[in-house]
Amino acid sequence: MALPDYSALGHKEILVSLENHIVVIVINRAKYRNTYNQRTVHELNEVFDLCDRDDRVRAVILTAEHDAPAFCSGADISGGWDILWSPETLSEGDQAHRDTGGTLSVAVYRCRKITIAAVNGHAAGVGMTALQLPFDFRFVWAGAKLTFPFVRRGIAPEAVSSYLLPRLLGHSRASSLLLTGATVSPNSPYIEALYHKILPTREEVLPAAKAFAEELVANTSQVAIAYAKGLLQHPGESIEENHLIDSRIIRTLASSPDGAEGVNAFKERRIPKFTETLSQHSSPFYPWWWRLDIKHRRTKL
Amino acid sequence: MALPDYSALGHKEILVSLENHIVVIVINRAKYRNTYNQRTVHELNEVFDLCDRDDRVRAVILTAEHDAPAFCSGADISGGWDILWSPETLSEGDQAHRDTGGTLSVAVYRCRKITIAAVNGHAAGVGMTALQLPFDFRFVWAGAKLTFPFVRRGIAPEAVSSYLLPRLLGHSRASSLLLTGATVSPNSPYIEALYHKILPTREEVLPAAKAFAEELVANTSQVAIAYAKGLLQHPGESIEENHLIDSRIIRTLASSPDGAEGVNAFKERRIPKFTETLSQHSSPFYPWWWRLDIKHRRTKL
Amino acid sequence: MALPDYSALGHKEILVSLENHIVVIVINRAKYRNTYNQRTVHELNEVFDLCDRDDRVRAVILTAEHDAPAFCSGADISGGWDILWSPETLSEGDQAHRDTGGTLSVAVYRCRKITIAAVNGHAAGVGMTALQLPFDFRFVWAGAKLTFPFVRRGIAPEAVSSYLLPRLLGHSRASSLLLTGATVSPNSPYIEALYHKILPTREEVLPAAKAFAEELVANTSQVAIAYAKGLLQHPGESIEENHLIDSRIIRTLASSPDGAEGVNAFKERRIPKFTETLSQHSSPFYPWWWRLDIKHRRTKL
Repeated sequence: MALPDYSALGHKEILVSLENHIVVIVINRAKYRNTYNQRTVHELNEVFDLCDRDDRVRAVILTAEHDAPAFCSGADISGGWDILWSPETLSEGDQAHRDTGGTLSVAVYRCRKITIAAVNGHAAGVGMTALQLPFDFRFVWAGAKLTFPFVRRGIAPEAVSSYLLPRLLGHSRASSLLLTGATVSPNSPYIEALYHKILPTREEVLPAAKAFAEELVANTSQVAIAYAKGLLQHPGESIEENHLIDSRIIRTLASSPDGAEGVNAFKERRIPKFTETLSQHSSPFYPWWWRLDIKHRRTKL
Repeated sequence: MALPDYSALGHKEILVSLENHIVVIVINRAKYRNTYNQRTVHELNEVFDLCDRDDRVRAVILTAEHDAPAFCSGADISGGWDILWSPETLSEGDQAHRDTGGTLSVAVYRCRKITIAAVNGHAAGVGMTALQLPFDFRFVWAGAKLTFPFVRRGIAPEAVSSYLLPRLLGHSRASSLLLTGATVSPNSPYIEALYHKILPTREEVLPAAKAFAEELVANTSQVAIAYAKGLLQHPGESIEENHLIDSRIIRTLASSPDGAEGVNAFKERRIPKFTETLSQHSSPFYPWWWRLDIKHRRTKL
Repeated sequence: MALPDYSALGHKEILVSLENHIVVIVINRAKYRNTYNQRTVHELNEVFDLCDRDDRVRAVILTAEHDAPAFCSGADISGGWDILWSPETLSEGDQAHRDTGGTLSVAVYRCRKITIAAVNGHAAGVGMTALQLPFDFRFVWAGAKLTFPFVRRGIAPEAVSSYLLPRLLGHSRASSLLLTGATVSPNSPYIEALYHKILPTREEVLPAAKAFAEELVANTSQVAIAYAKGLLQHPGESIEENHLIDSRIIRTLASSPDGAEGVNAFKERRIPKFTETLSQHSSPFYPWWWRLDIKHRRTKL
């Protein structure tokens, strides 16, 4: 692929930069309380798709300005619920229901790089769902007010939150959050297991996420991370099926450049230096799962 | 449906009342340590089925008298294990195995209203399983002694507890409870995540559950709660399938009376007032899952 | 089956004893930091298979010498990744990928007796995966350094850890462990829910595990434990399917010797004394799940 210049993609709602293999995305709608609109999601989708394919990118951090009114206060529904769908979807009628928040969740979930949400402010609605749940790690400000407000707005949990949240935390905590619509703090027992790290001030959240990403980028294998994410997301239906999948992967990686470097560094008692990229690596069995196409297709059938 | 008078249904083992859209069920067998018998389960099954269909009911709370010897000390097995099956089931022979505790668990799980167990005393056996696990929320007295005693009684975990408990808490904690049969307190790390709230005295449990229910009844949508519960119970097999389901639901709710009220209240900066009922609401795709029939049918095949 | 003498099976890498229905396995490779090699896994596989079938055995404890450098510091990869496969597998070429760690995980998982890992030292790699995750209970020394190092070694999580860890702890904690390769303590919020008990000194771990096992052996039913484990591992696809399975089991156990003893002891207000064994017990519906064969078969097809 042609290597994109992330800061020159013409984004309006987000600021994007690539440095030391880490893409940082800053939601740039402070004067709208960082509410989500169609263009924001469109731009985010584009960046996550690019990061997935760009070998230079090892980690993606999503954050906001730490002095914005919120990390993301959800969709701006002052004009009605139509904000949840793209104009194309809306024009196709009621059968075309894919909400853009859900498409973003899927795009982040499918990104094979390390993904981190650096939640340095309050979060509600899509700010809790698509902008946090599909990420590998979540860093958060201890003072953030966090809300899944759906049942208090007459709608249901969106952006695949009913799939992701119970898997992340278990059903007891997920029910306490999704069925109440309550506002909680990161230290609440209902939600604390969602976060990799809770920071005392807003200013500390992004630097902590960056330092964490830098350490992982320096010391982990891009290929190994992609397979590990694939295994966590698609472990097989049984312990036996998982054994057939993970052993096949390890057998392949054992003779790959990064696998060889891992063993050599061990023998030589030094830190490994991994250089293999996803586009260099090919495997006849990746992906090992069936990827359901979620695109809507207009049809007369 | 004809609107039932809950306090005049001729129940013997439970006391039932409906007030402010909340049904409160009190187990009324204090002199038998609130043990479970066939009639208790039969009466509870009937109430949960009615509450599911009665639009007036927004929440169901199950509790006991706070000065009873126990919230529920399990099945009264002094006459043998036959207490676990209905007389009709027993008469059909060994192939007819559906235990009544399991049927109650399924009835509570399928109830589309907010369900709360207010555990204001000790609980064992079915008092831990059918009377707690299928509920959306559990409130408990900090001093309660809690036991899943099955492996210490020569039988296996019953009433779908082997399905529900690992989903609620994860397998590590579920094994620590179900494979030991140990007696634990609500503050034990093995079980604390099961509870929405732990109260210091027995007297406080029901009022806390009621206040919680009243707030939810006042500020959430009946239809949205039913869909949210459906999504948590039947999220689809993959993130993509969940996206297809939840987006379809949101698209429908966006043009429903409660969805409209949610958006209008937001615009007008006021608290929403939801009035739609489940029987007014109809949808061509609800339920979106296949509901397995669990009734036993005598057959000569 | 012929009753094995566990201490006379010619094991070289492990010490095995049977006392009071409890098999204790001690990893006997202190001078190699208790690293795993082919023979260790082969011997462990054999013992877990025997324990599964030997009626005398009620519980199996895996531990190390408390003054060894580690409980298990993983595979000894100083000779390369080939250590992960048996010589037979290696000779069959790249299609033969079943790693021995994975086969051990499956053997422990399938053992129908109570299984306990007594982790009285540091643990890494297979020492975290096959030697801990498939067990029913884990006891650990508070000072243990615990690591899933895979992504820092250029390979993916092995020995079915991507299947077991998220089920045990939820996906949020599992990602924090498997995608970082960080070294954590048992009291870390990322991992503490993995452990049934955390002990302050290395010396206390095995005695605590033994006392726990002795109490369970004395007071639980061998048959009930096997069914409870089966239900936790194979609960059915839905709440309804679980109801059909668990009720069928309870109906059977209610008329079994251990089930009868459970009820009789209750009536007579005494502690039950269970004597039924797995080989005495037979059931037309056990196992109720499809057991995938994981053996590799060389074929010209």
